[in-house]
Amino acid sequence: MPATTSSPRTDSRTDSRPGGRSARVRAAVHQAVKELLADEAGELTIPVIAARAGVHATTVYRRWGSVGELLADVATSRFSGDIVVPDTGSLREDLERYASDLAKDLGDPDTLALVRAIVGTGGEGAGICRGERQQQLEAILEREQARGNQPPPVERAIDALLAPLYYRAVFTDQAPTPEWARTLVSHLLPD
Amino acid sequence: MPATTSSPRTDSRTDSRPGGRSARVRAAVHQAVKELLADEAGELTIPVIAARAGVHATTVYRRWGSVGELLADVATSRFSGDIVVPDTGSLREDLERYASDLAKDLGDPDTLALVRAIVGTGGEGAGICRGERQQQLEAILEREQARGNQPPPVERAIDALLAPLYYRAVFTDQAPTPEWARTLVSHLLPD
Repeated sequence: MPATTSSPRTDSRTDSRPGGRSARVRAAVHQAVKELLADEAGELTIPVIAARAGVHATTVYRRWGSVGELLADVATSRFSGDIVVPDTGSLREDLERYASDLAKDLGDPDTLALVRAIVGTGGEGAGICRGERQQQLEAILEREQARGNQPPPVERAIDALLAPLYYRAVFTDQAPTPEWARTLVSHLLPD
Repeated sequence: MPATTSSPRTDSRTDSRPGGRSARVRAAVHQAVKELLADEAGELTIPVIAARAGVHATTVYRRWGSVGELLADVATSRFSGDIVVPDTGSLREDLERYASDLAKDLGDPDTLALVRAIVGTGGEGAGICRGERQQQLEAILEREQARGNQPPPVERAIDALLAPLYYRAVFTDQAPTPEWARTLVSHLLPD
């Protein structure tokens, strides 16, 4: 089923006004998803989300199509620009700050519940979450290259930093800590 | 709600016979979960699973309690002893074979759908899956230690091997390949 994601539908003129009904529905539905994830209610289905948001299930189906599309939309607003990419002038320090900010973010139970739910729907939400992080890492590595140095390839940095951070958060009960995140950088950049 | 997981319930004597009704229900429900995951049906709920298995939803609720418990049970039967831990006499070769077997396993869409669903329920299924892999890795590292050598610590091996394999499988559309898995070993054991 096709579904619009971030922008409000424009079938009806009044619906597309910022702050109009469409924006209110979106806010209520996003809020319902966050609350249900925090409750660990178990089954995140469109009827359950719609009931919590106080809107008709058909409205949610029409606008997002599936729980996967809806979570992708929540992920877009949640993960876009949430972490400031550090710019300290040193690759090692940039990566240490970035990895430890990401560890803090993934240590937040609400973030973790959203990441897990997104993986569970198996879809594009995971790509959005990964894409945002990968671009941030690339920005750090490109800056090092612009300084005339030879940073590790981005694939290597993903395997050494993003992968253990997400693996630990998603597959274990140990929250990743900023200290541990910095040791990951020391393995990527020995010296 | 408490729930039994792997062993059949013994409330009723006839129910506990191997091959009896309880075993048939378990097989039908496990099969339903696998089919629904393969369908990418989206919402994996107990009523949907029960309907596919041809049993009453109350039977499933009584026996497993939640989708999370049920997926943990499916994970236990799926991931126990599925990969043979290699024993070639060389740490590097053992790890290369192990990582490439795991890459092949995670490249299977059915395995991947199960791993994603397990992460989505946020619960013990992820621990079961991780626990099994971690023990296999430990067995390889301990054998190297018994040969009088100094292998990397298990935490380091998890970060360098399991984490990128699962991260790539779960967060990206690239299936992990055996060749790439072997390069992960070369980063863990430089030379």
